[in-house]
Parts: sequence; C-alpha cells; structure tokens
Amino acid sequence: MQRYDIAIIGTGPAGLSAALTAKVRNKSILLIGSKNSSVKVEKAHEIQNYLGLPKIAGADMQKAFLDHVASMDIEITEGRVSTVYAMGDYYSLQVGEEMVEASSVILATGVVQGKPLPGEEEFLGRGVSYCATCDAALYKGKKTIVVAYAKKEEAEANFLAEMAGEVVYIPMYQEEVEVSDKVKVVKAIPKEITGALKANALVTDQGTLETDGIFILREAVAPGQLVPGLETEGPHVKVDVSMKTNLAGCFACGDIAGIPYQYIKSAGQGNVAALSAVAYLDQKKHSA
Amino acid sequence: MQRYDIAIIGTGPAGLSAALTAKVRNKSILLIGSKNSSVKVEKAHEIQNYLGLPKIAGADMQKAFLDHVASMDIEITEGRVSTVYAMGDYYSLQVGEEMVEASSVILATGVVQGKPLPGEEEFLGRGVSYCATCDAALYKGKKTIVVAYAKKEEAEANFLAEMAGEVVYIPMYQEEVEVSDKVKVVKAIPKEITGALKANALVTDQGTLETDGIFILREAVAPGQLVPGLETEGPHVKVDVSMKTNLAGCFACGDIAGIPYQYIKSAGQGNVAALSAVAYLDQKKHSA
Repeated sequence: MQRYDIAIIGTGPAGLSAALTAKVRNKSILLIGSKNSSVKVEKAHEIQNYLGLPKIAGADMQKAFLDHVASMDIEITEGRVSTVYAMGDYYSLQVGEEMVEASSVILATGVVQGKPLPGEEEFLGRGVSYCATCDAALYKGKKTIVVAYAKKEEAEANFLAEMAGEVVYIPMYQEEVEVSDKVKVVKAIPKEITGALKANALVTDQGTLETDGIFILREAVAPGQLVPGLETEGPHVKVDVSMKTNLAGCFACGDIAGIPYQYIKSAGQGNVAALSAVAYLDQKKHSA
Repeated sequence: MQRYDIAIIGTGPAGLSAALTAKVRNKSILLIGSKNSSVKVEKAHEIQNYLGLPKIAGADMQKAFLDHVASMDIEITEGRVSTVYAMGDYYSLQVGEEMVEASSVILATGVVQGKPLPGEEEFLGRGVSYCATCDAALYKGKKTIVVAYAKKEEAEANFLAEMAGEVVYIPMYQEEVEVSDKVKVVKAIPKEITGALKANALVTDQGTLETDGIFILREAVAPGQLVPGLETEGPHVKVDVSMKTNLAGCFACGDIAGIPYQYIKSAGQGNVAALSAVAYLDQKKHSA
C-alpha cells in the first residue's frame, strides 16, 4: 500500500493552503474532502478582510482557491474520513470503505456547529454512526434514519437505501431534497436519541421514530471522535503556535484549531501546519 | 492627546492584515510603517503558496495588499517607532520625535536579519542609536556614522546632516546611493563598535572610523529593545496561539512572532492579533 507523506483532511481554506505548501515542498499528499471546498466559503456574502482579495463574494473566493490548487496540479479526493488511527510510526485513515496510510496527518475539517444530540455520544458505535458508506453493511434489511446537515449527504442516503430495509431521511438544510424512491423523507427536528444497550429510537418534534441505526451526517465530526487519543478543548483540537497537537505527526489548522473562525487565519495556519509536517517528516527520516 | 484603540507597528502582510480586521471591527487604528509595505515582499521573485493569489510576483502582491488597504480607507503613517512603553493601562509610543498613545499595540515589525554587531548592544543608548530622527539633536556639531540597511534611510541621513557636524554614511544595500552633499558615503563592512564609557569608533574592513555616535538603521529592531519588558525567544516575541505576548494588550504577529517566515502565515496571524486586541479592548471597557 502506498503511504503518503501527508494526509490532509478537509478542503476549506486551511486544508487547501496546507496542500499548496506541502506541494511546493515536494511531499506526496492525499487531500481528502469536498471538491467544492467549503460550503461555508461558498455561501459567504462578502469577505472584506482576506488580504489581497478585497470585497470578495464567497463564491468568487471559493473559485480563486480551487483554481489556485488546480493550477498546481493538486487533486482533491472526494471522500469522508471517519476515523484516523495513530499507529505509532504512521497514521491509518478510514476513508469511506477504504483504509489509507500516511506518515503524517493535517486535520482541517472545520468545526462542529452546535452541540451533539442528547444520547448521540452515548450510543456512538452502538446504533449511531457518522458514516453511511462505512457502516451500511451492518444494517442489511434493517430500519435506519439519516439526519443530514448538507445536500451532498443525499448520495449517502441513496447508497444506504440499497442495503438497508428502510431509510428515513431527515434533511437539516434549506435546499430541495432529491433522493431515490427508496428513501423516505421526513421533515422533523431531532431532539434525542434513546435506547438501552443500543440506540433504538430518535425522538423528534414530530414524534418518536423507532429504528435500528441512526446516521448523523454533519459537515465536520468532533475531533476527539475523528482521532482517538487527540487532546481537545471543547469542540477544538489543542494546538501550539506551530499547529502541533499532542500526537506526534498530527497537526491541526483552521476552525478545528480554535477561534477566530476567519478565512485568512485558516489559510495562514494551513501553511504553518504543512511546514511543521515537513519538519516532522525530515526529522523522522534523519533519525531513522 | 488622542488615544488610539490599536497601534499597529509594521506594514508588511501581518500589519496590513491586522489593520483590515481592526477596521472592519470599527476600532480607531494608527498604522505605522513604510507606505510601500515591506521591502521583502516587493523584492520576492514569485510566491506560489499565498492561497488565492497563484504564482504572483512580489511587486504584484505588494500592490494587491496596498490597494486592498487603501480601498478600506486605511492610512499608513510613515514613521519609525523607536520604543513602546507599557504604561499600565495603555501604551506610549515614541514615533520619530513624537509620542503617541494607544490602548493596545500590535507588533508586526518583521524580524531582525543577522546578528547585532559586536559592541552594538553594549553601547546602545551610549553612542549607539536606532533612530536618527529621535536622537539627532544629541549630536549637534558632532561626528556621526549611519549604517543603513535600506535605501529609505537616506532621508534619515539627510535629516541628521542638518544638525550633526559630520555624517559618514555606510550603505548596506545594493541600490545606488543618493544623499545630500553634506553626507559622506563610505563603502565598508562594519565589524565592531568600540569605546569606553561611550562608543567612540566603528571598526570596518576598510579601517577604523572615529565617531561620537553610530546610527544603525535596520528594517526591524530587536523586539526586546522595542518594547522593554517584552518576553522574547531569540529574535522573536513569545506568543501563544492567539498572538498574545506576556504584556496585557500587546500582541505580535508575522515574522517577529517566530518561524515560518511566510506571507500567508503573517496575514493569518495579523487577523488573529487584531481580533485578540478587539477582545482585549472590549473586556477592558466592560471591567472599567
């Protein structure tokens, strides 16, 4: 299996900036995320304080960022990383159904907006999952619920519907919902996950839905769940000024690394994270 | 005397970025430095990794930055800050011959390249000065030497020549030297400053020059000399991830805040420093 020098998770300003610098420094990189960069950037009305791009609409900034990355032949691998395992000398990443390896990891996944549902953390791995692609096989013929925070999750629901016995889809976004006939759309606001040994129901403002499994698909996953053993502070990863986390070879940048949530700050931290990763790789090589 | 909310020292990417964000947040700012931004940016051949500005020549980046700042009606006050005094509740800055006040300070002066001359720190304030405009009056009719690391210092030498009895000008840059007739240009490489109670000679590779005072004019002044009491680490200011220094209300960003020396990192840190200054000001107001 190919082992990348640096896996960069996230394609917002932090991840894209990290990719640019890692590429300039000739490292092999795996950049995983949405090919459209960040929904947050795309939908921003106007950004005034990204030095060099005055009064720019979010969509134009998104284009400028993606064009820059494309001009340097950096590819974005569309995918969702569900877990990053520290293996000692390297990292193993679960991307959809695949496992990939990298010598170092840069976390640039953004920050989880809002709090987890009551019961969500309690039942995670026991009827609650953050990745339909990863766990669909566990729900063959069973009843499932997908709580989706972005339109792109419709593809996940469609995929799940090919295996599960039932998929109830709860859209938490504004856009029109377009899913396959096998998916049943329910407009409701989730309130709580309940169960005993495993989750068995989702309580909503429209009543309680019984289920075998609940998929909660957000833009970002809480960092401590993404990388077991990672030191966190609330919804953020704890970093120092060089973007190092408590795990050697694991760096974080952008919104996941703390406030302020600002594009230029994220881009700056992405650069620092990449150079710290390069220094880590160089040191590792010399001490090997 | 007007007291600014935030004094920003330095007009490279860090200082300009800090100014944008402070302006967006409606703070009164004094932005002090060169109206041409940074010589380092201007002379950069090509920058590949400033996200959003692909493959850009330094001079074009400089223009993009200055245009952005100008478009938001932010003025640059041309000047050199020789010392920043922490007064408890506010900061007092010596800018040329003037004193100005600000409730908070952002240091974005860049980093001192190279080591001080032997004897430089020993005789600082005793025959060695970093500011001709500030100290010219002390050298009325006396013999002085100016060691200049940038062409813009020619104005300082011309000013000094109106008061001092003699000005020997040692250019440490490549461009043609254009100074007034009163200034004597000497091409030499300074090696050491010698003296007894006060500095009285500059040793160079071309021989020893006797003098009453030596002005060393670099792009940046060592941070510990700029702000008495500031905690430093080598040539850098010690900061945390929110760009706070050990002095309440004093923040640092860009090259002065440590490696890597990268434009996007400096711009990102400038944004963070500005928002940390805004938070500091808000907190001060509420606790007053």
